[in-house]
Amino acid sequence: MYNFRTDLADERHDIYKKTNKLENIPGIETTEKIIDDKLKVNTVKIINNEGERAIGKPIGTYITIDVKNLKIATDEEIEKAANTVKDELKIIINNHCNPEDEILVVGLGNQFVTPDALGPKVVSELEITRHFLKYTPQYVVEGTRSVCAVAPGVLGTTGIETSEIIKGIVDNIKPKMLIVIDSLASKSIERISSTVQISDTGIVPGGGVGNAREELSINTIGIPVIAIGVPMVVESAVLVNDCLDIFIEKLQEEANSNDYLNRLKEKDNYEEIKESLNPAGFNMIVTPKEIDDLIENMKDVVASAINLSVW
Amino acid sequence: MYNFRTDLADERHDIYKKTNKLENIPGIETTEKIIDDKLKVNTVKIINNEGERAIGKPIGTYITIDVKNLKIATDEEIEKAANTVKDELKIIINNHCNPEDEILVVGLGNQFVTPDALGPKVVSELEITRHFLKYTPQYVVEGTRSVCAVAPGVLGTTGIETSEIIKGIVDNIKPKMLIVIDSLASKSIERISSTVQISDTGIVPGGGVGNAREELSINTIGIPVIAIGVPMVVESAVLVNDCLDIFIEKLQEEANSNDYLNRLKEKDNYEEIKESLNPAGFNMIVTPKEIDDLIENMKDVVASAINLSVW
Amino acid sequence: MYNFRTDLADERHDIYKKTNKLENIPGIETTEKIIDDKLKVNTVKIINNEGERAIGKPIGTYITIDVKNLKIATDEEIEKAANTVKDELKIIINNHCNPEDEILVVGLGNQFVTPDALGPKVVSELEITRHFLKYTPQYVVEGTRSVCAVAPGVLGTTGIETSEIIKGIVDNIKPKMLIVIDSLASKSIERISSTVQISDTGIVPGGGVGNAREELSINTIGIPVIAIGVPMVVESAVLVNDCLDIFIEKLQEEANSNDYLNRLKEKDNYEEIKESLNPAGFNMIVTPKEIDDLIENMKDVVASAINLSVW
Amino acid sequence: MYNFRTDLADERHDIYKKTNKLENIPGIETTEKIIDDKLKVNTVKIINNEGERAIGKPIGTYITIDVKNLKIATDEEIEKAANTVKDELKIIINNHCNPEDEILVVGLGNQFVTPDALGPKVVSELEITRHFLKYTPQYVVEGTRSVCAVAPGVLGTTGIETSEIIKGIVDNIKPKMLIVIDSLASKSIERISSTVQISDTGIVPGGGVGNAREELSINTIGIPVIAIGVPMVVESAVLVNDCLDIFIEKLQEEANSNDYLNRLKEKDNYEEIKESLNPAGFNMIVTPKEIDDLIENMKDVVASAINLSVW
Repeated sequence: MYNFRTDLADERHDIYKKTNKLENIPGIETTEKIIDDKLKVNTVKIINNEGERAIGKPIGTYITIDVKNLKIATDEEIEKAANTVKDELKIIINNHCNPEDEILVVGLGNQFVTPDALGPKVVSELEITRHFLKYTPQYVVEGTRSVCAVAPGVLGTTGIETSEIIKGIVDNIKPKMLIVIDSLASKSIERISSTVQISDTGIVPGGGVGNAREELSINTIGIPVIAIGVPMVVESAVLVNDCLDIFIEKLQEEANSNDYLNRLKEKDNYEEIKESLNPAGFNMIVTPKEIDDLIENMKDVVASAINLSVW
Repeated sequence: MYNFRTDLADERHDIYKKTNKLENIPGIETTEKIIDDKLKVNTVKIINNEGERAIGKPIGTYITIDVKNLKIATDEEIEKAANTVKDELKIIINNHCNPEDEILVVGLGNQFVTPDALGPKVVSELEITRHFLKYTPQYVVEGTRSVCAVAPGVLGTTGIETSEIIKGIVDNIKPKMLIVIDSLASKSIERISSTVQISDTGIVPGGGVGNAREELSINTIGIPVIAIGVPMVVESAVLVNDCLDIFIEKLQEEANSNDYLNRLKEKDNYEEIKESLNPAGFNMIVTPKEIDDLIENMKDVVASAINLSVW
Repeated sequence: MYNFRTDLADERHDIYKKTNKLENIPGIETTEKIIDDKLKVNTVKIINNEGERAIGKPIGTYITIDVKNLKIATDEEIEKAANTVKDELKIIINNHCNPEDEILVVGLGNQFVTPDALGPKVVSELEITRHFLKYTPQYVVEGTRSVCAVAPGVLGTTGIETSEIIKGIVDNIKPKMLIVIDSLASKSIERISSTVQISDTGIVPGGGVGNAREELSINTIGIPVIAIGVPMVVESAVLVNDCLDIFIEKLQEEANSNDYLNRLKEKDNYEEIKESLNPAGFNMIVTPKEIDDLIENMKDVVASAINLSVW
Repeated sequence: MYNFRTDLADERHDIYKKTNKLENIPGIETTEKIIDDKLKVNTVKIINNEGERAIGKPIGTYITIDVKNLKIATDEEIEKAANTVKDELKIIINNHCNPEDEILVVGLGNQFVTPDALGPKVVSELEITRHFLKYTPQYVVEGTRSVCAVAPGVLGTTGIETSEIIKGIVDNIKPKMLIVIDSLASKSIERISSTVQISDTGIVPGGGVGNAREELSINTIGIPVIAIGVPMVVESAVLVNDCLDIFIEKLQEEANSNDYLNRLKEKDNYEEIKESLNPAGFNMIVTPKEIDDLIENMKDVVASAINLSVW
């Protein structure tokens, strides 16, 4: 399989089409919605094994919401983005559970590593109701859904696989749905903490950059798992590979055509770039300087979207 | 049973002796060790049901380590305190499990509430080995014990009883011992974040001030539970009750004897003080202004003691 | 002078009246406004030296806004409290400078000590305009006031008196008004982080509990200094003294009158309580367990009030 | 002048030599010290105007200490790095002031932006003595130097130029030397938070990437200014430019020589890369994913080096 270097179905779809010079990929349906000049929603539906094989993601729905300039967004823009995410999330939730079903939200990531802290930060902003429904139901508005949440930490600080912790909790409290907030790798630096991918397939390691983790999905946990993923980092080699294409394009506009450049651009140079950068210590995982502000705003978008959509 | 208003076995022992004008309590054995002018170790052993009934704590060993002036302790003093806690903790651990047994450390409390954050802070300083032993045993020194740790959050932020989370994790990963770090109520403001109580009876709610929680002990979890508790808060009414005694003593030294004062001092006025303060909104739970520095140093003491004692 | 143990003019006024059995204090005018069942505004105007001597505060206006249950306030209640503070603050600002005058806001306190962190936290939420007006005035709405802000730290961490830092900055950038956010001592634990005192006299040490600091006022800085003070801590001895009165009242309701108790209640026992608690190590400065949440909400109230009132 | 894209004199020296195919640059003297396989010290002395013009840095001494793998350094390695920085810093301090001269340390940067927080973090770890010497000299060891420190914030959050704040404080408290901790831009991602540059020329904007700031030097402040700079970020275009060279080298090893590639590698493509990346939104400032851990360790190195060298 092609090394996509991105966890976004939307980006993989584009890469596959471009690499294979296709207009459409059999087994995949896509739609695009423009909300306004700062908000865009793309949906990639993988409907059969052919689509699954093409872009290396399980059958299911992948919704990508892009928010432009989130770092300097106003309160109104954040609210609008949250509402857009909420609209999409609500549909996916309602497709997979009933309104009265208990939901457990899991905020993955390490709160002490800035670009990995989104999950725990979102969890601390959620409106938790399970304990009120259990101990003081008389004070809770009728029809309130039971919501609980954990931020289980990461293997490096707990010594325990996240999936082991989650399975233990799910077995014990038996929620009907899991919503998992996760950090993704993207190939586009401008998408860092500015794009949300919602999928109904859980978290299935394998395709993208990053440490292998155990799958969190209906297959392993036994209940539907909705994943809310946000790109947080990009690998230097990916960045350079993409920049190289842009740069060569510019060179070609200026200079006469150069065969070598043409060939260089036509093929994917990622592996060779990585091989050349690794020994020099240059192939680090990077994040934008503004990551603190980006995450602060993205946390508001995701937490607010979840709070609004579970009703 | 007497309302002890303290989770420290040592304080309960003193209160019971004083209230009942006893020199010794049947069923309880105590020892005292003075390490130096800043460090003192008291041990209360409850050896039968009579002792258990007297001070309302289960049969077992309760070790209290007092550290004076922890807030302004030097690095050497912190290290010395950590070593004293380590010595006591190591004996208790070795009494209840084998050197190769896996230990799960649980840091209770809410990291966003300063006087409740000790548990999560200690967890983030622990030397975790379980994942190295599991995935890269070739790089681990032989004889290293498997240690893992979680900070599961509190009911108010997760919606889930801590005991439900811990039971789930224990069932799934099957450690041989639990070490639980917990905040206690004490009746002495000078003991806040300056005293460590180690016990081999787990955490059993009921006696002290505080929200009822589900028991974490060998009875409920199935493995030995060592509790490391540190007093963090004191109730205004407890503070006033104790201060009243001290104040009346002073009045009596100055004035001629006054019958009313004598009677006031002889009996325990806590309930009446509480009743008089509650309507005025005065009966708050308080913590010293210096709690941040106190916890920072206590975190170093407890984390270092655990890291040293699990070897 | 009487030891008032509080920096709130309102509390001092009450104590002086009670101690001297007066209905009114010559030289002091007071008004009270009830906004709703959760919001109350008291104004104490000290109009001459007689008033100044009585309660040990300089001639000027002291406005106290009490917010009930701020810890669990909703967003709407916080906004309402902020608006009330804004209304009062705006009048005081407009009394002492022109709409176009530059204002420097100073957040006093130590951000690493929870009950002392309000000032720095407020500063980080302010809408700063001075640099936009200076470097990119074309993008700034006409009539925007120049606002700048610093959180200079505390003597213990900088080694420099705050007044030395502030004088240096004021001499160099020459603002027309100073707004100083400060932590106060109060004698009422239920007022901790729930009461705002606005005064037009600056910060003048001397009367209350706390470390002596150098005066920050028009006399020392050369420009009007508005102080926004919030009680954050209370001394154990003050707490016990107040609780003692409440407790004795209750005892007297129950028992027949006791001369000794009557005399005890009539006089102020603070100094004797302090003397008896100090050697026992009991006279600590305390703050409510919920101080983190209280400060989080109070920060929103004060920051929003300043942002709204400088327009 | 050449656009060096780095604030490190050492890197500029290399670039200038390479670009101009020189063995030595007139007006510049360099030495290299290898401490061990993880620690290296380079010194660049600019001795006259010719050297100054060549690399665009004022006459003075620039010492670069490289620490390998700082992110995963042990306590011993951090201490060794701190000692190396201390040795170099102490010489520079002693060259420019007397042992009894008061030093003001200024931690530049924004504590709320992870890759910009080194300065404020270092300040909070310094041993401050000025207030003890002023108020309680009887408790201070004889010969203790007066040290004070501020973290003045950044223009974006205060609205005030840092130089305005510093000048105000220096005018008011009159220290004899300024040590300024600053974030730098480097062209090497592996140097991020792993390299310390000490210079005796203060902070003089102009050469590197970054916002123009007002000079902090003996010329503007009137006392010697020692700058401790640490690279924290790198621009995408710089990263791509450097990676391109490495990549082309690799291509050339594999393929037959290609004239176009040769020419591409020979010239500096930075400006063209920047022009091509900017419209695509790709030219962001990035920092490694591990920046939190890197800064935590670098803070220990720098704070400890300052604490040890001012004695």
